[in-house]
Amino acid sequence: MTNLGYSMEDPIAATATALAPAALGIVRTSGKGCIDKIAAVFSRPKALLAAGANTLVYGWIIEHTQRDGTPYDRRIDEVMLGVYRAPKSFTGEDMVEIYCHGGVSVVREILALLLRSGFRQAERGEYTFRAYINGKADLTKAEAVREIIDSKTGASRQRAASRLSGGLLERINSVKKLITDSLASIEVAIEYPEDEETIADSFDSSKLTTAQRELALLVDSWRSERLYQEGAKVVLCGRTNAGKSRLFNALLKEDRSIVSDIEGTTRDYLESTVSFDGIPATIFDTAGLRWTSDPIEAQGVERTKELSCDADLLLYLVDSVQGLNDEDKDFIASASKKAPVILVWNKSDKEDALPLPPPCEDWQDAVSISAKMGIGIGDLIDAVKRLLTAGTDTTKDSVGLGSERQKESVAEALERVTHALKTAESGEYGLDAVVQDLEDSLDSLGEVTGEVTPDDILESIFSHFCVGK
Amino acid sequence: MTNLGYSMEDPIAATATALAPAALGIVRTSGKGCIDKIAAVFSRPKALLAAGANTLVYGWIIEHTQRDGTPYDRRIDEVMLGVYRAPKSFTGEDMVEIYCHGGVSVVREILALLLRSGFRQAERGEYTFRAYINGKADLTKAEAVREIIDSKTGASRQRAASRLSGGLLERINSVKKLITDSLASIEVAIEYPEDEETIADSFDSSKLTTAQRELALLVDSWRSERLYQEGAKVVLCGRTNAGKSRLFNALLKEDRSIVSDIEGTTRDYLESTVSFDGIPATIFDTAGLRWTSDPIEAQGVERTKELSCDADLLLYLVDSVQGLNDEDKDFIASASKKAPVILVWNKSDKEDALPLPPPCEDWQDAVSISAKMGIGIGDLIDAVKRLLTAGTDTTKDSVGLGSERQKESVAEALERVTHALKTAESGEYGLDAVVQDLEDSLDSLGEVTGEVTPDDILESIFSHFCVGK
Repeated sequence: MTNLGYSMEDPIAATATALAPAALGIVRTSGKGCIDKIAAVFSRPKALLAAGANTLVYGWIIEHTQRDGTPYDRRIDEVMLGVYRAPKSFTGEDMVEIYCHGGVSVVREILALLLRSGFRQAERGEYTFRAYINGKADLTKAEAVREIIDSKTGASRQRAASRLSGGLLERINSVKKLITDSLASIEVAIEYPEDEETIADSFDSSKLTTAQRELALLVDSWRSERLYQEGAKVVLCGRTNAGKSRLFNALLKEDRSIVSDIEGTTRDYLESTVSFDGIPATIFDTAGLRWTSDPIEAQGVERTKELSCDADLLLYLVDSVQGLNDEDKDFIASASKKAPVILVWNKSDKEDALPLPPPCEDWQDAVSISAKMGIGIGDLIDAVKRLLTAGTDTTKDSVGLGSERQKESVAEALERVTHALKTAESGEYGLDAVVQDLEDSLDSLGEVTGEVTPDDILESIFSHFCVGK
Repeated sequence: MTNLGYSMEDPIAATATALAPAALGIVRTSGKGCIDKIAAVFSRPKALLAAGANTLVYGWIIEHTQRDGTPYDRRIDEVMLGVYRAPKSFTGEDMVEIYCHGGVSVVREILALLLRSGFRQAERGEYTFRAYINGKADLTKAEAVREIIDSKTGASRQRAASRLSGGLLERINSVKKLITDSLASIEVAIEYPEDEETIADSFDSSKLTTAQRELALLVDSWRSERLYQEGAKVVLCGRTNAGKSRLFNALLKEDRSIVSDIEGTTRDYLESTVSFDGIPATIFDTAGLRWTSDPIEAQGVERTKELSCDADLLLYLVDSVQGLNDEDKDFIASASKKAPVILVWNKSDKEDALPLPPPCEDWQDAVSISAKMGIGIGDLIDAVKRLLTAGTDTTKDSVGLGSERQKESVAEALERVTHALKTAESGEYGLDAVVQDLEDSLDSLGEVTGEVTPDDILESIFSHFCVGK
C-alpha cells in the first residue's frame, strides 16, 4: 500500500467504456498474475497463456460452475482478449483487455466474474497512476490523458494531445536545463572563492532571464488553456419572443461538436454545451424576461438574473422590429456591470426591422442576425470568441499548461527565479541565497512533471480520473 | 450493392462504444484496403502494414496537414490498433479496431478523419451483416449478438449467449435432419413405385412426429424467451401514502441489475427497469389514487388507470393499518378484469396492522410486506415471477427461440409438418403433396438460420442493430 490508498501490482479490473448499450465494451485488467487469472475464466486458457505480447486471442469468457451436481461451463460472452506483457503496456504491468459485447448487463457480468476471481475493482485513475509509478508517463502526460477524455471540443482535445505527446514536458525540461546550467556556474563560483568579485560581476544572468521569460509565458498560457478546458458560461437572455429558443437551436445546429443537451433541473432554463470555434461554452437559455407580478414568472426572471451574475458573457437578444425598450436598457445596464454583453439584434431580415443602435458603453459588441434564416450566426460566433479570448493568446500552436495545479507550481518557480535574479543583481546577499532560490524553483518544476510530487498532490490528481483509466 | 442497400467489401467505419466520456473508446473498421487506409493516418505505417493477424500495434492517429505552408502531422490520439486479417475476423474481412481514449470529442474526431480518408460510415448492423454474408455467423447467431447488447438482466443475456454459441442452430439443424431423412425415404418410395402400397403403410411417420414435437416445443419456448427479452410491464398503484415510493425504492435496491431510472415525461409517474429474479420488468410508480375534484389530481388518477389497462401485472399496495376501503376495492375489481393483481399488504410490521384479507377472486395473490423494513420483498418478487411466468417454462436451461421472426418461421414449419402427417395418414393425396409440405417446412427453417432468407427479412433484421455492430 502506498500512502495514496492504491496498493501496487495486485490485479485490478474495471470497465473502461461507458455503461450504455453499444456494439462493443472493454473490461480492463492489470497487475501481477492477471493473465493467469483471466485464463481461469477463459474457454482457451492454453492459447491465452501461450499468447505473446501485443496479441489478440479469440474465445469465450466462461464461468466454471455446477449444474445438477456436474461441472458445467456457463458461457458469458464471446470476446477478443488483448494481451500485453510487462513492461510493454500502458501501466507497465501485465495487462489483459477484454473486448466484449457492449450490453450493460454483459459488461457488468464479466466484471462481477473477475471480482469473484481474484481481481480487485480498480480505483479512479489507478491504471494511469501505475503508469506514472512505473515510469511510463510523467505527470504532464498523465493529466493530459484525463483532459483528452474530458475535452469538449476538438480544439480542447488538440491542446491536450500536444501535452500527451510530451510537448509540455519538453518545454519544462528546457527551462530546467537553463536553471541547472546557471546553478552549475554559480557553484563553480562558490567552489573557487579566490575568483569571487561582486556577485553582480561573476554572475551571468542571461540564462536565468531566458528561463524567467519562458516561465512567464507558461503561466500566461494557462488563461487560454483553461478556457479551452473548462469552457465559458454564456447566458442567453432577452424578452419573451425575442427569439431566444430559435437562436439557441441555431447555435447548436451550427456547431458540430455539441456535447450534451441537459434539461435544467428547474424548468426555468435549458443548458447545453456548444463550441464557439473550438472554445467550449455552456449556454443557458433562460426564461423570457418580463417584469411581472405573477410569482412564478417572477421566479424565472430572478433566476435569469442569478445566472447572469457569474456569466462570462451575456448575449442579450432583442427583436429588432420592436427595438430596445426601457426594460431591456435597465437589464443590460445592470448586467454589464458584471459581465461583457453582446447585443444581438434578431429578426434583422424583416422589412420593418429597426437599424442596429449606435455603440453604447453598456454593451461590448452588437451583431445583427436572423436566427430563423441563419443569417449572421457566424459573425455572432466570431464576436463571442473575440470577447471570451480578450487578453489571452489563442492563436499560438505552442503547447501550454494543462491544469491549475501545474500553473501554481510554474508560478512558484517563476517567483523563485525572479527572486534569484533580484538577489544576484542587488549584490546584498551571498550566492548561497541564489542557489537556494534556484533549487526551490527546480523543486516546483519537478512537481509539474512528477519527479518531486507529494502524495497528497498525487492523490488529488488521480482521484479526478474516471474509473478504468 | 445488394438489394439491402449495403454495398459489400468497401471499407466502412463506425464508433462501436457508447458516446459518453469514458476511459476508452473503440472505432471499428472493416473491408478491403482498410489496413492500408488506416496506415495513411497512423504514426507507424510500416509497423501496421507488417503486423500479423490478431496483433496489437501501438502508435498515434495523425492527420497529415499543413502549417504555415509546410507539411505538419497533427496528432489526434495515442492508440492501440487491433489488426485482423481476412478471413480470421468478425466480419471475415480485413479489420482494424482502434482502441482510443474514450472522450466524446476524440472518438468523433477519429471517425471524422476516417470518413475523410476513404472510409464510409457503416450502416446499422453492417458488420454483423458482412459476418453473415461471409459465412461467419448464421442468422440465429447474428440475432443473438443484438440480443446480448440489448439484454436487460443476466438471465436474458445468458439465454442469448446460448443462441450465440450455436445452441439454437443445433436444435434447428437436428429438426431439419429428421425432416430431410423423412423426405429421403419418401423419395425412395416415389422412385420405386412398384413397392408402393398405401401411403400410410409405406410411410414411417416416427421421425416426422419427433420433428413435430420438437417444433412445438420451440414455438412454445418463445413465450418465456420473449419475457426475458422484452420484459413485463408492472404497475404499482394504491392510495396516497400507502408506501408506493418506498416499495419502489426497495425493489430497485433489492435488484442488482437495475438498468435505468427514467423520470416520466409527465410527472405523473416514475418508470424504472428492475429484474424480478432475472425477468426484466418496467415498473411504473404511479401517482397516488384519490378520488378528487381537483382537475390536476384527477388527471394523475386517469393516467394510473390508463397505465393499468395494458399492464402485465398490477401491484396494489395497501397500508395495512388502514386496511381496504371501498375505493381500493372498486379499483382492484375493475383493474383485475384486465391484468392479474397482487395485493401488497404494506406496513405489516406495525403493531396495529390489520391481518391480510382472505383470498378473493379479485386478486391472484396477496403478500405481507414492510417496504420500510425490507420485510417480505423476496416473497413479493417470487409472487411476481410466478404470475408473470404462469404457463411458460422458465426452469429449463435448454435454448429457445430468440425473436418473433424466428417464432413465425418455426410456427410455419410446424404447420407444414403437421399437415404432411395428416396428409400421409389420411392417404387421400399422393406422396407428392407430402413432399411439398416437407420442402416448405425446410424452407421455413432455412429462414430461421438464414440459408433461405428473402432480402426484406434480412433488412428488417439488420436494421435493428446499433451502428458499429
